[in-house]
Amino acid sequence: MQKILAKTEDMRAAINEEMKAVLQYDSVTTPDLFFGMNHYHMGWVDEQMQPVQVHAGKQIRPLLLLLTNQAAGGDWQQAVPAAAAIELLHNFSLIHDDIEDTSPTRRGRKTLWTIWGIEQAINAGDAMFAQAHLAMSRLLERGVPADITVQALRRFDETCLNLTHGQFNDMDFETRDNVTVDEYIEMITGKTAVLISLCTELGALIAGCNAPTVRHYAQFGLELGLAFQVKDDILGIWGDEAVIGKSASSDITTKKKTLPVLYGLSQSAELRRLYRQENTDGAFIAEAIRLLDESGAREYAIEKATTYSQSAQGHLEAAQPNGAAYTTLNELADFLLQRDF
Amino acid sequence: MQKILAKTEDMRAAINEEMKAVLQYDSVTTPDLFFGMNHYHMGWVDEQMQPVQVHAGKQIRPLLLLLTNQAAGGDWQQAVPAAAAIELLHNFSLIHDDIEDTSPTRRGRKTLWTIWGIEQAINAGDAMFAQAHLAMSRLLERGVPADITVQALRRFDETCLNLTHGQFNDMDFETRDNVTVDEYIEMITGKTAVLISLCTELGALIAGCNAPTVRHYAQFGLELGLAFQVKDDILGIWGDEAVIGKSASSDITTKKKTLPVLYGLSQSAELRRLYRQENTDGAFIAEAIRLLDESGAREYAIEKATTYSQSAQGHLEAAQPNGAAYTTLNELADFLLQRDF
Repeated sequence: MQKILAKTEDMRAAINEEMKAVLQYDSVTTPDLFFGMNHYHMGWVDEQMQPVQVHAGKQIRPLLLLLTNQAAGGDWQQAVPAAAAIELLHNFSLIHDDIEDTSPTRRGRKTLWTIWGIEQAINAGDAMFAQAHLAMSRLLERGVPADITVQALRRFDETCLNLTHGQFNDMDFETRDNVTVDEYIEMITGKTAVLISLCTELGALIAGCNAPTVRHYAQFGLELGLAFQVKDDILGIWGDEAVIGKSASSDITTKKKTLPVLYGLSQSAELRRLYRQENTDGAFIAEAIRLLDESGAREYAIEKATTYSQSAQGHLEAAQPNGAAYTTLNELADFLLQRDF
Repeated sequence: MQKILAKTEDMRAAINEEMKAVLQYDSVTTPDLFFGMNHYHMGWVDEQMQPVQVHAGKQIRPLLLLLTNQAAGGDWQQAVPAAAAIELLHNFSLIHDDIEDTSPTRRGRKTLWTIWGIEQAINAGDAMFAQAHLAMSRLLERGVPADITVQALRRFDETCLNLTHGQFNDMDFETRDNVTVDEYIEMITGKTAVLISLCTELGALIAGCNAPTVRHYAQFGLELGLAFQVKDDILGIWGDEAVIGKSASSDITTKKKTLPVLYGLSQSAELRRLYRQENTDGAFIAEAIRLLDESGAREYAIEKATTYSQSAQGHLEAAQPNGAAYTTLNELADFLLQRDF
């Protein structure tokens, strides 16, 4: 990742400058708390509205958008407002997710709602949602034609609707015992993959690609997002064990319904019985992993991830990207998938 | 209002049809609860997702948009998606406001969050926010040019940002003792007037008016919204007494910081002392009204409302509207202002 970060320094600077313009951040003047709450969330100021430097995530989504744009033959500077919009959309959803999940911290800092209350945090998220849209409309000022800008905005909101649908399913699943593998794939498609797909789709759209090429880029992002999520599910159970020899992870302790678990539950009556017990101690974890292994859940998930990953690669090649950005795009995809299982 | 409703039956039918298309409402199939929660909020189904007929408000905002559009020379059918978007935006904000204000009921029914929980209600509101934007982008299908559609979307989101700023101020004021009249005007501008202004502005924009005319229509809506809010503040203290002889209203009992109260507090040390006491019984109410009258708060507020109202009328005339829609637009403005004080 260090290599990718070094190669994309100018892109990341441009994304951050654009986000600061849209969120009306000026480090010199003391901001209105209304804007300040969102500057806090972005990691630009502390609770007292004093400038700070906080690691604000790897910003992989906006980078994916700009790299796709460049690999598809675009001038990435034109696409910067869309990249900023994607990152703001992601951050808006984090503000509301933190309330919905009652999460006290994010990135090692107190979440917005724990400082200013749920009421103001809901409203601050709504403001950032509006600002994400305002970022999109700034494509006009970079010379992107109005018809492409409207089309990009429409895809942006269709994706927002998918994201909220995915979040609905995720919250709904927590209350249900009978979630199927297919429902799970639908949920992670909505919660994770459609946003990655929007990045690659908008990158191509703004580059002026024709419709079939835009679709290949969109599908590349979608399958990449699915592969990423399933890989994450695998690491959540077997990752630590395989890589650093620690015992299995919190996904078992919390009985999280990830893909390998749902597959295992569908195959093994013993696992279903085990998951009905309250206690999730060391013996529970060991037995759960034994039953998951026995049911073939790991192979199943690896096969799924591999299929998604290969399909992603196929769509990327079909889109015929080129140049140095194509290389970096591939590196970024490799990093996301950590193809080491 | 009955006369206006009769004259705008076709417009209201078109607005509702458009909203149902955008919210994916089909009364025949049983909907996904994800969409169903918002159908419930709109008054189309009950808690069990069975179709119902509920009075869903007078829909004055979208009507204002379509009437302005027609009076400005447009074909109102073209503007229907924007009218639907305004009504969805308003309803999205109600879903979140009800959580923020812990309101158990709205329009005589349980609020969304009391049935499905705060988490799902935040998310359902986010979905409707995205759908309001999707409604706007449907202007394209009605033949509105892409550049006007993008401009309309930008004004839509700038207004959303103003609305959240107004909501921030409103919540912030509840915790403060030193709110000024100017801050109050700024707050109601953001919370109420900018949305009314957006209706008249978008109506004119979509009709293809030139920039100065669009500005007059926007200003007409803004001043109309301010006049409406101040009038509402006056009725909240003296309305019942003057009209139906009842004793003063809940705005005094709840010590709500409306314009007449803020003016009175700035003028009368006695009123400031009175408002410091906990008890708000009958003697408190009588004394508060006596002091408000003595301070000239009522005349001050009436003068403000009159100035806004006259300014609104001036901008409307400067915009040179015409036809039957102009007459109805005037009737709607009169209804909003109930010019009877």
